[in-house]
Amino acid sequence: MDLFYILGLVATAAFAASGILAALATRIDLFGAVVVAVVTAVGGGTVRDLILDVPVFWIHDQAWLFVASLTGVLAFSARRQLNAGSNALAYLDAMGVALFGSGALLKCTALGIPLSHGVAMGVVTAIGGGLIRDTLTGRDTLLVSPELYATPIIAGLTLQALLVGLSGLDDSTALLVGAVSIFTFRALAIRWHWRMSDIAINKP
Amino acid sequence: MDLFYILGLVATAAFAASGILAALATRIDLFGAVVVAVVTAVGGGTVRDLILDVPVFWIHDQAWLFVASLTGVLAFSARRQLNAGSNALAYLDAMGVALFGSGALLKCTALGIPLSHGVAMGVVTAIGGGLIRDTLTGRDTLLVSPELYATPIIAGLTLQALLVGLSGLDDSTALLVGAVSIFTFRALAIRWHWRMSDIAINKP
Amino acid sequence: MDLFYILGLVATAAFAASGILAALATRIDLFGAVVVAVVTAVGGGTVRDLILDVPVFWIHDQAWLFVASLTGVLAFSARRQLNAGSNALAYLDAMGVALFGSGALLKCTALGIPLSHGVAMGVVTAIGGGLIRDTLTGRDTLLVSPELYATPIIAGLTLQALLVGLSGLDDSTALLVGAVSIFTFRALAIRWHWRMSDIAINKP
Repeated sequence: MDLFYILGLVATAAFAASGILAALATRIDLFGAVVVAVVTAVGGGTVRDLILDVPVFWIHDQAWLFVASLTGVLAFSARRQLNAGSNALAYLDAMGVALFGSGALLKCTALGIPLSHGVAMGVVTAIGGGLIRDTLTGRDTLLVSPELYATPIIAGLTLQALLVGLSGLDDSTALLVGAVSIFTFRALAIRWHWRMSDIAINKP
Repeated sequence: MDLFYILGLVATAAFAASGILAALATRIDLFGAVVVAVVTAVGGGTVRDLILDVPVFWIHDQAWLFVASLTGVLAFSARRQLNAGSNALAYLDAMGVALFGSGALLKCTALGIPLSHGVAMGVVTAIGGGLIRDTLTGRDTLLVSPELYATPIIAGLTLQALLVGLSGLDDSTALLVGAVSIFTFRALAIRWHWRMSDIAINKP
Repeated sequence: MDLFYILGLVATAAFAASGILAALATRIDLFGAVVVAVVTAVGGGTVRDLILDVPVFWIHDQAWLFVASLTGVLAFSARRQLNAGSNALAYLDAMGVALFGSGALLKCTALGIPLSHGVAMGVVTAIGGGLIRDTLTGRDTLLVSPELYATPIIAGLTLQALLVGLSGLDDSTALLVGAVSIFTFRALAIRWHWRMSDIAINKP
């Protein structure tokens, strides 16, 4: 098991837990919540693989569904300890978004897809699972929340693409830089309620 | 035409009718309602086939779209007789969910996919069409309704998988047991408002 | 560059602009709005290509994402001039729907798919991007709005299919007739609030 496989499973667990947190706001029960958790965890990567026309990543490796459903059961069991009102959902989502987004760009690079398309695929993969989660549970999608959401993803993926394309950095290191950039930027946006108007040169 | 083909068409008609019932709560017209009916009827199976990377089931056989749209037109015409306030939508959904879920598990088994993944694919196939229906028509998804929804599906599919894997029951009989189990369990949950807390050993 | 390629890019730009208009009703920022614009613009055609099992149209040609994101940035920049309360969104959607729907039917015809399925694929392609847009931005889908929506699409695509199948008109001319029919019918429905009850022989 290499580092990126483990990081993928970490992202899967983070997204699954975010699915449980979203589901707790509804009248859902254990198995319903676990379905939301699993679909959230594997949704973005499934869309990515369908578009890339490669085998869906979880179909030949039972670890993904296992980690997603186990995390779902554990998070549901610990629901009294999880404060659904806090920003835990947003931070867990940020972890998943950062790792799935940068991982998708790496996968596209390995397939010989141009970096600009890799960035687009990274965005789709990053936000796909969360959009399914928010639609299933009737929440406004995080994409339309006021705090910066797409901006950190696009910025981090662009940085990762530039490091690979211009400086020739190896893909793995670039992924780590990309993922850490996305997570840090997004986490700061959540914590300090950063909005576009805060960073725009010409305030609207 | 074998039994399973006919059961598939029955499930298609049931899902299509549930789409019309969902659409009647909006200001939709005939053709809009028929589009909702068709997308509801073939949505789950389409997602299943995309993930399995096999040809989408309705693309080479006109019967599916024909049955779905004809059912849509008939159900729309009979809309005054259909009481949208009753549980008809939930029972029709239960029929579709039971037959599509167990049919998807059978299809996965035939493709040599592990039973655990077959159960996951069965869940996705079963709930896919209804999720599209509820999103299109602006309803809360049945998945987050308080009555047991994912539980009957997972229980019935697990029973079906165990019968195939452990007892060596032939696939067709196992499908019938799975479908009847899911429908009966779900119908009882609708009728008697069964919730997780009713069946949990340790009530929350 | 042939006429149909250019018409496709026009449809892409129209859908992207409709995505920005939908996004302006939320608290979204520039990059979030551009993501909505791009997903709206390429969503329907992506679903079409996945179902047809052909390479996703934008993956090997950077023009599509470029036009979609550039239109998104321009429309977002001009947001003070765009009156989100007007029907601009509906008319832009009508342009995209007309061109993507008739283009999808043409693509299916070229692949040897029966005309009845081509009409169904045209409908799915036409409405797919808008449904994703409306779901992302929390709007009621245009499909369930009272003005005729599915009716113009189905009518125009049926006309196009009849012209190809019965009169043997060449595909390109038929596409133009189909697209103009859909747009004109839909635009009249928006302008004059045409509803099914207005055109039904037996008023309900």
